Amino acid sequence: MISALGIAAFDPTGPLAPWSFTRREPGPTDVQIEILYCGVCHSDLHTVRGEWGDITYPQIPGHEIVGRVSAVGASVTRHQVGDLVGVGCMVDSCRECDPCKRGLEQYCDEGNTGTYGGTESQTGRPTQGGYSSTIVVDQSFVLRVPPSLDLAGVAPLLCAGITTWSPLREWKVGPGSRVGVVGLGGLGHMAVKLARALGAHVVVLTTSASKAEDAYRLGAHEVVVSRDEEAMRALRKSLHVIIDTVGAPHDLNEEMRLLALDGTLVLLGGSPEPHPSPGAFTFITQRRRLAGSLIGSIAETQEMLDFCGEHGIMSDIELIRADQINEAYERMLKSDVKYRFVIDMATLTPASSAPASP
Amino acid sequence: MISALGIAAFDPTGPLAPWSFTRREPGPTDVQIEILYCGVCHSDLHTVRGEWGDITYPQIPGHEIVGRVSAVGASVTRHQVGDLVGVGCMVDSCRECDPCKRGLEQYCDEGNTGTYGGTESQTGRPTQGGYSSTIVVDQSFVLRVPPSLDLAGVAPLLCAGITTWSPLREWKVGPGSRVGVVGLGGLGHMAVKLARALGAHVVVLTTSASKAEDAYRLGAHEVVVSRDEEAMRALRKSLHVIIDTVGAPHDLNEEMRLLALDGTLVLLGGSPEPHPSPGAFTFITQRRRLAGSLIGSIAETQEMLDFCGEHGIMSDIELIRADQINEAYERMLKSDVKYRFVIDMATLTPASSAPASP
Repeated sequence: MISALGIAAFDPTGPLAPWSFTRREPGPTDVQIEILYCGVCHSDLHTVRGEWGDITYPQIPGHEIVGRVSAVGASVTRHQVGDLVGVGCMVDSCRECDPCKRGLEQYCDEGNTGTYGGTESQTGRPTQGGYSSTIVVDQSFVLRVPPSLDLAGVAPLLCAGITTWSPLREWKVGPGSRVGVVGLGGLGHMAVKLARALGAHVVVLTTSASKAEDAYRLGAHEVVVSRDEEAMRALRKSLHVIIDTVGAPHDLNEEMRLLALDGTLVLLGGSPEPHPSPGAFTFITQRRRLAGSLIGSIAETQEMLDFCGEHGIMSDIELIRADQINEAYERMLKSDVKYRFVIDMATLTPASSAPASP
Repeated sequence: MISALGIAAFDPTGPLAPWSFTRREPGPTDVQIEILYCGVCHSDLHTVRGEWGDITYPQIPGHEIVGRVSAVGASVTRHQVGDLVGVGCMVDSCRECDPCKRGLEQYCDEGNTGTYGGTESQTGRPTQGGYSSTIVVDQSFVLRVPPSLDLAGVAPLLCAGITTWSPLREWKVGPGSRVGVVGLGGLGHMAVKLARALGAHVVVLTTSASKAEDAYRLGAHEVVVSRDEEAMRALRKSLHVIIDTVGAPHDLNEEMRLLALDGTLVLLGGSPEPHPSPGAFTFITQRRRLAGSLIGSIAETQEMLDFCGEHGIMSDIELIRADQINEAYERMLKSDVKYRFVIDMATLTPASSAPASP
C-alpha cells in the first residue's frame, strides 16, 4: 500500500479535514500520479453532503485532477514517469458493454467507476478523489495534459471543460452555429470559451445584467438578460444549440422557444427536482429537442485537452490552499467564485488545519 | 368560381351540416381534384370547436384527401387529368424561407398554409378542407397515390401516416431498431405498421391489455401494459425511438427510462397542457432526447406513399357516409374507432342530412 494524504469529509454536515489513508500499489496497467492541482466542483459538495445518495465516510472528493506521473506499472505504454497528466470524473468502467465498446465509458451499462464515491474494482474499496497527494489510476483513464498551459487552469477542464465540450461536439457546433449558454458559472464560462473557439456565435443568457462584462470578456458575442422580454422575443427561433448549466429547476419554455428548427437544448445540470415542463407544441412546431449529456468519454476528453492546448484555453480560477476548502464550499454555495476554485495541492500537509467556515 | 359542396361547422358547438360554397378557378399551376375519400382526424374536431384558437365559420375540415384529378392549369407538369392524387395537411408555404428551401415546408417560417383554417394566398379567403366534393391545390402540394391500394385506406396516410413516418425516418428507424409506440389510435396504429415494415422491432405500450390482440395483428412484436411495473422495468434502456401519439398530458418519466443510450422520445400529440416534466437525470445519464415532430414534408409524404404502395400498407378504417360525421365525432371523442373514420364522399349530396349525434 502507498501512504497518502487527503482532505476528507467525515460525515454529511461537518467540515472537511486532513486524513491519512492508503492507495493501492500500482498494478501492471496502473499509473501513479503526484497530484499538483485539483479543481473544486459543485458535485463534490453534493456528494460529500449525501445529497446525491448515501456514501461511506471518510470520503475524499475531487475529480478535476492534474499531476505528474511518479510511477508506472510494467505493462503501461501510454504514459511515462514525469509526464503531465490529468484524471477526470471516472477511473474505470466495465469495458465490455456496448457503450464501453463504442468508446462512451461515461455511459457504461454497469455504471462507470467514479473517481470518488465509487468502488475500486482492483480492491473493492471506495474510490477516493483528487483532494489528495497522490492517486493510482489505470492508464486507460489517464489523460495527457498539454504542457503549454497553466496547470492550475487546466484542472477544471477535466470536468467543467469536458462536460460542456461533449455536447458541443455531439450537436456539431462549429462555424455558422449559434450557441446559447445559460448560467455563467464553472460550466457556463467553459461553454462560452469552447463554443467561441469552435467558431460559433455565442449568446449568453443570464438573469443578472451584472454578468455582461465578464461574459463578453470570456468570449460572448451577445448577452441577453432573460427577464428582458423584448430581447428574448428578438432571439426566438435563432439558436441551434443551447447549453443549459443551471442545476436548479427553472422554466425551459422560453429557452426552448429560442431554438431554431431542429435546435437542441442540452441539460447539464442535475436538477434534483424536475424542471417545469415545456409545452408539447414548443417541441412539435420546430422539431426541437431537449437532451441531456453526462461528462464525456475518455477520447473526447483527450480531444478537448489537445484543443485547449492549441487554442490556449483554460478555466478562470481562484487558487486556494488546502486549508481554505471549507470556506470555498461556503462561497461556492453562494456562486461567489470566478469561476472555479482550484486547490494547490503543495499546500496539503498533515498539519494543514482545515477549519469550518466561520 | 367553381361550385362545390362540403360538410361545414357553422359555430364551435353545433353539428356539422352540408354547405354549398365555391372554390377558386384553377390557376396555371393548380390542380382540381374530385374528392373520393377524406379521413377524419382529431385535429378536425379540435379546430372546428375552436379549441386550437378562433376560426372563421363556416369551416369545412378535412386534410386526409384522396381523389382524382379533374382539371389542371396550363403550367401543370406533375399531374394529369385522371390521376389518383392525395392532399394532406398543407396546401402552400412561402417557398422562400430556409425551411422551405430545405424542403421542410411544414416548418415554413411564415407558417405553412393549412388545408383548412388557413388563408388561401391566391384569393385571401379561408382555406376549406376535404369534407367536400372538390378542391383546387397548387401542384407542388399534390401527391401521387399508388393505384395498387384501396383508396379509402390511403386517405389517412396523408396525415396519420406521414406524421408517424417523418419521425421514424428522421430518427433513422430500420433493421435493428427497437421502436416503442405509445397510444394505439389513428397515429399509433400507423406507427406500428410503418415501423414494422421498415424492419424495426416494435413494442406497443398501452394502458389497456384489451388492445394487445389488435396490436399484434397490426404488427407489434411485443405489447407491454404500462401499469405492469415489472414488464416496464424489464424494458428499461432498450428502445431506440419511442413514438408517443398521446394528446393528453401524461407522465413521460417512465417512457424516457425505456430509452437506450442516445434514444429519442418523439411527441406527436399536441397536448394543450404541458406533460409533467421528466427529471433531468433521466436525460443526462443516457444522453436521451425528447423531441417533437410536425406532420412531414411533401417529399417525405411522397416517399411514404410510395413505400406504402410497395408494402401494401393502408390505414385500418371505418367507412362512413357524409351524414354520419357528427356521430363519428362523438365516437372519436370516446376513442371508439378502429382506427380512422373515412368519409365516402360519393354519399355527399345537397340533401345529405348530417344530424347531430343523439
